[in-house]
Amino acid sequence: MPAKGASVDADVIVVGAGVIGTAIAWRAALAGHAVIIVDPGGDDPRTDDKASLVAAGMLGPVSESVFGEQDLLNLNLHAVDRFPSFNAELERAAGRETGLRTEGTLAVAYDNGDLAALDRLTEFRHSIGLVAERLDARECRRREPFLAPSTRGGVFAAGDLSVDNRRYLAALRAAAATAGVRTVRAAAAHVAGGRVALSGGGVPDPSELTAAHVVVAAGHATRDIDGVPETVRAAIRPVKGQILRLRHPTGMPHILTRTIRAIVQGHDLYLVPRKDGELVVGATQEERADRDVTAGATRDLLRDATTAVPAASELVFAEAVAGLRPGTSDNGPVLGPVGDGRLIIAAGHYRNGIMLSAVTADAVAALLDGKDAHAAWAPFRPGRLRR
Amino acid sequence: MPAKGASVDADVIVVGAGVIGTAIAWRAALAGHAVIIVDPGGDDPRTDDKASLVAAGMLGPVSESVFGEQDLLNLNLHAVDRFPSFNAELERAAGRETGLRTEGTLAVAYDNGDLAALDRLTEFRHSIGLVAERLDARECRRREPFLAPSTRGGVFAAGDLSVDNRRYLAALRAAAATAGVRTVRAAAAHVAGGRVALSGGGVPDPSELTAAHVVVAAGHATRDIDGVPETVRAAIRPVKGQILRLRHPTGMPHILTRTIRAIVQGHDLYLVPRKDGELVVGATQEERADRDVTAGATRDLLRDATTAVPAASELVFAEAVAGLRPGTSDNGPVLGPVGDGRLIIAAGHYRNGIMLSAVTADAVAALLDGKDAHAAWAPFRPGRLRR
Repeated sequence: MPAKGASVDADVIVVGAGVIGTAIAWRAALAGHAVIIVDPGGDDPRTDDKASLVAAGMLGPVSESVFGEQDLLNLNLHAVDRFPSFNAELERAAGRETGLRTEGTLAVAYDNGDLAALDRLTEFRHSIGLVAERLDARECRRREPFLAPSTRGGVFAAGDLSVDNRRYLAALRAAAATAGVRTVRAAAAHVAGGRVALSGGGVPDPSELTAAHVVVAAGHATRDIDGVPETVRAAIRPVKGQILRLRHPTGMPHILTRTIRAIVQGHDLYLVPRKDGELVVGATQEERADRDVTAGATRDLLRDATTAVPAASELVFAEAVAGLRPGTSDNGPVLGPVGDGRLIIAAGHYRNGIMLSAVTADAVAALLDGKDAHAAWAPFRPGRLRR
Repeated sequence: MPAKGASVDADVIVVGAGVIGTAIAWRAALAGHAVIIVDPGGDDPRTDDKASLVAAGMLGPVSESVFGEQDLLNLNLHAVDRFPSFNAELERAAGRETGLRTEGTLAVAYDNGDLAALDRLTEFRHSIGLVAERLDARECRRREPFLAPSTRGGVFAAGDLSVDNRRYLAALRAAAATAGVRTVRAAAAHVAGGRVALSGGGVPDPSELTAAHVVVAAGHATRDIDGVPETVRAAIRPVKGQILRLRHPTGMPHILTRTIRAIVQGHDLYLVPRKDGELVVGATQEERADRDVTAGATRDLLRDATTAVPAASELVFAEAVAGLRPGTSDNGPVLGPVGDGRLIIAAGHYRNGIMLSAVTADAVAALLDGKDAHAAWAPFRPGRLRR
């Protein structure tokens, strides 16, 4: 346990109030630490740049991106294994639901090339012990009747989960507050082992907070914080993503019961239904740092969504929003202590922040108690990053 | 002049605070009448169903729809002739600009069929004394360099105007308020010569207002008001329209200098640039009474806009919004006294509400003074409507 005394403001300061930072803060508080979160933003996706607010909340350990990335796959499997129990505890602690769905994911194909790619993915899932079921076109449309007639076939992954990203973040915040976590509205300008210099917000005094440990979980903004090692800062970059939220008009039955994935005209498309009738459509991946919702991206997402599920044309267009994911130079997150060990980095979760949030919180809780993080985290220590 | 006495609340009650009702109220107040506007709504397009808030504000007397509708064409020509002086007076009275643009309209074609249709339109314009200039593809793109390379040719109508519908409505409201017009936030449940029964809003007492004259200018909602003649109510229907508002990102030069019209994949498309960098994209026409913005309409408008002007893909997607135009059984507006002459109808302006607002206000002001409206209005009296 870190020293507690009049000379520090908290045991742990967490920089960042997205799903990663808030999950860490909650679990640290549960473990008996006095915790302060430092974050400049609110929770309006139009003004707050948290990737957490823009996510679709898919929790699937396997996608095209982890073919051949065994370390990341191991971490994702660990994450999906842990998520349900973490989420159940969260819902109890917060007294609210996160919208976890367990109906799985159906990946569909429109031509032979897509089908072959799905077959490779199925083989890969089988090779690592995951279930995946090859379905013909008729069976795809029997399970999801609103899929386009042009659907050629698909693969059903029963184990994939999804969660409502905004409800999940709201639950984490409620649980953290209940556990005694305090939040300071300010930006972290500089961090060091045990110290965070603040800027902006309404908090000029004190302009510095002190604690036994500082955890930086600031997503893409981690690269902007002085005191974070240069190798970490250089490895993190914002990757813009735009998503849409559609909504069923009153009285219209829900057109999907599970997550749909597809490649449409070369674009990776996903459609994630929420229990409350929302349908999330994503997502673009752009090497840009602005958060403008563009006409072109909105057009592409709507075109692809209505190609896959024509009845989506009838849904209400509720929102288009852009966020910045924290990409890294090797697509893996960055987790572990740096320097004298009092500064801990938990950033760079790229597209997997929600899925990895539970095991990230576990790992940081272990580090704060002087223990090792789960072995799946070993390849993702900050020390791996080179200039 | 109507009688003024302690027994009435005003000289004139105008039901409806869109561009038609507000223009009437302003001009009636200028003529010395005590005027009350009755309207339940605010001016948020997400909650208020005024078509005025959703319009593009194009002011062109000739479009495909008036081929062969000589009476409507005459009225439109009268309206466009009158608009600039009315608008100039309005800007002075309101102390604010309406965003009037005088750069004209360029109608473009993508194939021989479209070109032939444009040539017919050009001949028609010439036949009624309007200017219209046939341009080849090179000249179209010289004037509007961001038009798609597939543009085959076009016709330039120098006389067409456009106005920013929201700024225009705001100016009318400011001018009306300055002229002493009062607004009562309530719905008109029942009208008669000299009386308006109120419902809803925060105005239970008095639940009835009285005046020498009542003018119903409630757009599509006119059909819902008891006391309006059945023939008028039956002739008016809501026609849903969805439009988009795009915006130039900071630092991006404006991609259009004038209104562009085109037929894209059979859809009638228009792109109306605003002085402040907004670009309005319209519009759907749907025989529906809901105001849901749908995924399908948004997709179609974005697809068509970026087909006509590919660089529009880079614009910020600012807003999608739906409104209900007041269509009529013969596409013409309805203007004139009914019953004992103390009840005046000014409704059914369909797609031309902003363009016709100035001459509608003139006409009602004349009627209130016991004079005839301009001769162009003669074919549009309520009495023409039959069951």
